[in-house]
Amino acid sequence: MAQSLTSFFKDKEERITEKLIDTVAKLSIPETLKESMLYSIQAGGKRLRPLLMIASCESYQGRDEHVLNVAIALEMIHTYSLIHDDLPAMDNDDVRRGKPTNHRKFDEATAILAGDALLTYSFDVIASDLHLTDQQKVYILKRLAEASGPKGMVAGQSLDMHAEDEELSLDHLERIHQLKTGQLLEFAVEIGAYIGGANDEELYALRDYGYYLGLIFQVQDDILDVIGDQELIGKPIGSDEINKKSTYPKLLGLEGAIEKKKHYLVKAKEALVKANLSTSLLESFVTHISERDA
Amino acid sequence: MAQSLTSFFKDKEERITEKLIDTVAKLSIPETLKESMLYSIQAGGKRLRPLLMIASCESYQGRDEHVLNVAIALEMIHTYSLIHDDLPAMDNDDVRRGKPTNHRKFDEATAILAGDALLTYSFDVIASDLHLTDQQKVYILKRLAEASGPKGMVAGQSLDMHAEDEELSLDHLERIHQLKTGQLLEFAVEIGAYIGGANDEELYALRDYGYYLGLIFQVQDDILDVIGDQELIGKPIGSDEINKKSTYPKLLGLEGAIEKKKHYLVKAKEALVKANLSTSLLESFVTHISERDA
Repeated sequence: MAQSLTSFFKDKEERITEKLIDTVAKLSIPETLKESMLYSIQAGGKRLRPLLMIASCESYQGRDEHVLNVAIALEMIHTYSLIHDDLPAMDNDDVRRGKPTNHRKFDEATAILAGDALLTYSFDVIASDLHLTDQQKVYILKRLAEASGPKGMVAGQSLDMHAEDEELSLDHLERIHQLKTGQLLEFAVEIGAYIGGANDEELYALRDYGYYLGLIFQVQDDILDVIGDQELIGKPIGSDEINKKSTYPKLLGLEGAIEKKKHYLVKAKEALVKANLSTSLLESFVTHISERDA
Repeated sequence: MAQSLTSFFKDKEERITEKLIDTVAKLSIPETLKESMLYSIQAGGKRLRPLLMIASCESYQGRDEHVLNVAIALEMIHTYSLIHDDLPAMDNDDVRRGKPTNHRKFDEATAILAGDALLTYSFDVIASDLHLTDQQKVYILKRLAEASGPKGMVAGQSLDMHAEDEELSLDHLERIHQLKTGQLLEFAVEIGAYIGGANDEELYALRDYGYYLGLIFQVQDDILDVIGDQELIGKPIGSDEINKKSTYPKLLGLEGAIEKKKHYLVKAKEALVKANLSTSLLESFVTHISERDA
């Protein structure tokens, strides 16, 4: 990882996690509900989305305190989606990041409600922010609802469920990824820049960057499932094969997947040039995502 | 039901349902997701919350088209809460309003996602409205997130789940009702008036009205479970007794519950006087809720 990105991550990660916990911990709400919300929020995770949003904001000389509430609201949305995805009726996962999933630690009803609560509270957090104008808030709230709701992440999750055991085309596979994980990553990049003061042309280019970043994230995920280090990624490799998941290596071969990733990396960097950010943190960011080993 | 209220209901109910269906039907989203969202939205229901919001808005000479999107967003939130409450891990209900519940008609995963989608989309609908100012939207979005999220409805649901089989005090029972059903009813009344142009003093008084209206709704629910007409209410009477639910008649006796309801009705009407609405539709509304037989 590039030195400047390492220090950026180190600097911001703690700040994000602290703010995230404080914002939930201060709620005067029923104990079990709060415990289960905090449990999943404290269960680790790379804080990729908030980090990306702050990096994007600072790339345009925006200040991180102006974006921090939106960044943690986004992480709440991501966390809710993991809680609901892990439920028995969905992916039925017992373990996430080495710990029991929310419904295993508590119970299913509590997990459903903790997810609903985090989702709804994220809109409250943005609407209550003290740095943003009303115009900015409305724009951000609308984009968040689009990116995470039936036009975005929830649509991706719905398509993904119905695609299980099916042989997908590359187009179909990418459509699902773009909805299920890409939309929140695009939101992070776009809204960070929006708050940072990017102009319309730059925002337009950054959507492209976010789009390719999301796909690179996913190709690398699929590649790691074939050639990754089990210790580092924290789950057995080869599970995609066992679960008959459609993946880039399955559709294109391992070499083909690596080529595809390189192609997307070129595209992402081209978008950064258009956004006048060719040497920014965002350039290190996408390279990091493309080379990550976990 | 008073004549003016009858014609009001008749006039607005169709308008609400039509707008609600159109707003979901126009989404370009995966078929199954849309079908399951539409299924629960079309499953009937009294549209009490949107009707209340429009009545409140029109009581201050506001126009219904200014409040309609917020009203249907609120009904989406109510609908999502029913879908999630009916899930096997929650109340495990197979039938609602004489039809299979969402997860029985589709499957659990689809029902969870349909709920998540309706919840998230409701914020999109408000943020995209063309009549409201950005300042109004931010205020409304914040109040909606408070009323429906961990500070409101979700908290009520969480407390309710943990109160099962417990003997509750009247205070505790009312706290749960106020959170679980009262908050959305209060939101309906307050925001309708806010958009209609009520002043701060009137809004303050109307919160009281909404509070008592919510409790009256619940007392009457409990009373109907004892002396209601099975045919009219669409479920077997006496089910609260069988389910060992804490109710007003159980804590106060049937006569005591009826007295309590009368007391709340007086309080609600006092609040209307303070809100300068003593002879408004809202007066007929609360009387109707208090006397309803279904």
